[in-house]
Amino acid sequence: MYPRLVEDLISNFETLPGVGRKSAERYVLHLLSHDEKLLEVFGDNLQRVAKEITYCPRCFFLSAGGLCDICQNSRRDSSTICVVEQPKDVVALEKLEMFKGYYHVLGGSISPMEGIGLDDLKIRELVMRLKEEIAVTELIIATNPTINGDATATYIAKLLKETGIKVSRIAYGLPVGSDLEYADELTLFRAMENRQKL
Amino acid sequence: MYPRLVEDLISNFETLPGVGRKSAERYVLHLLSHDEKLLEVFGDNLQRVAKEITYCPRCFFLSAGGLCDICQNSRRDSSTICVVEQPKDVVALEKLEMFKGYYHVLGGSISPMEGIGLDDLKIRELVMRLKEEIAVTELIIATNPTINGDATATYIAKLLKETGIKVSRIAYGLPVGSDLEYADELTLFRAMENRQKL
Repeated sequence: MYPRLVEDLISNFETLPGVGRKSAERYVLHLLSHDEKLLEVFGDNLQRVAKEITYCPRCFFLSAGGLCDICQNSRRDSSTICVVEQPKDVVALEKLEMFKGYYHVLGGSISPMEGIGLDDLKIRELVMRLKEEIAVTELIIATNPTINGDATATYIAKLLKETGIKVSRIAYGLPVGSDLEYADELTLFRAMENRQKL
Repeated sequence: MYPRLVEDLISNFETLPGVGRKSAERYVLHLLSHDEKLLEVFGDNLQRVAKEITYCPRCFFLSAGGLCDICQNSRRDSSTICVVEQPKDVVALEKLEMFKGYYHVLGGSISPMEGIGLDDLKIRELVMRLKEEIAVTELIIATNPTINGDATATYIAKLLKETGIKVSRIAYGLPVGSDLEYADELTLFRAMENRQKL
């Protein structure tokens, strides 16, 4: 019913996760009700991102060409690498301003259901990297606390057993400020299991 | 933390209604995880819409240049014009395949709260149009059943009182399939008031 081009743009918005026809329509009409400058800048940014943004060849975080900003920073701690699933996990950890080492983005976790196997993740690249970066003494695995994240962490830990690198996993337990009564059984089980000496 | 360009694109998505930082980030990372062809086509469509899509000079629905598809269709009923607030209302009514006349999109409704006055709506254009299109005998006002939509409808009806054109308003009442018990008082009041002889 809308002009062809408007329908095409609505379809583009519909490819986004969680966006249905109604929302996509709303977005396009919103953009159209503003001045066309916004639409042009938006379109231009999408095309520039398509052309210029790649993955860092070392840690696979997003980069504007060559090594990413984090890998380019030589003042970080080269003895520690934190392994995460997605680029957004790097951003979450960087906001903490607590971890000073480098990262390694796997690009997901092992998921037989979604057909994501070991070869789809940057695990081989991680092993290669550890052979080159001899300063690394600890690998912190910060994959998600899910079955897939766990399986990935366990696999990597096994793979690096012989290397002498200390492999750790971020802690499971009750979220700070939560209520013990409402915690799910598995979380409570892990919280008991991983209790710390006071 | 992300490359500058990625941050810019996230900001663009954040301008959309109901989209916050988290969703915008998710959309951009989703697009980046696909092949860059999608990003390019998406960007290209945004720019083409910015350049090529305008408002129909007659009814103010969206058009790819000149009169919109509906106004170009000479087989429609030229005796009736349906007045709506937004382009998406035209699409909703067209899906019914019941109304065969032409449309007039006001671009909103009178809203003192948001600073939308009479001059911001295509009301003057409607009056001009009715002077030119002498075949029009009925104007169906299908603005939203809200205070603003009501005020707009009442204003237009008053304005056209002297012209002899029949002005009607789409009916208020209980939605089909709803439960009388749960209807709000105003809707129930209107449903009683507008009762029809059986």
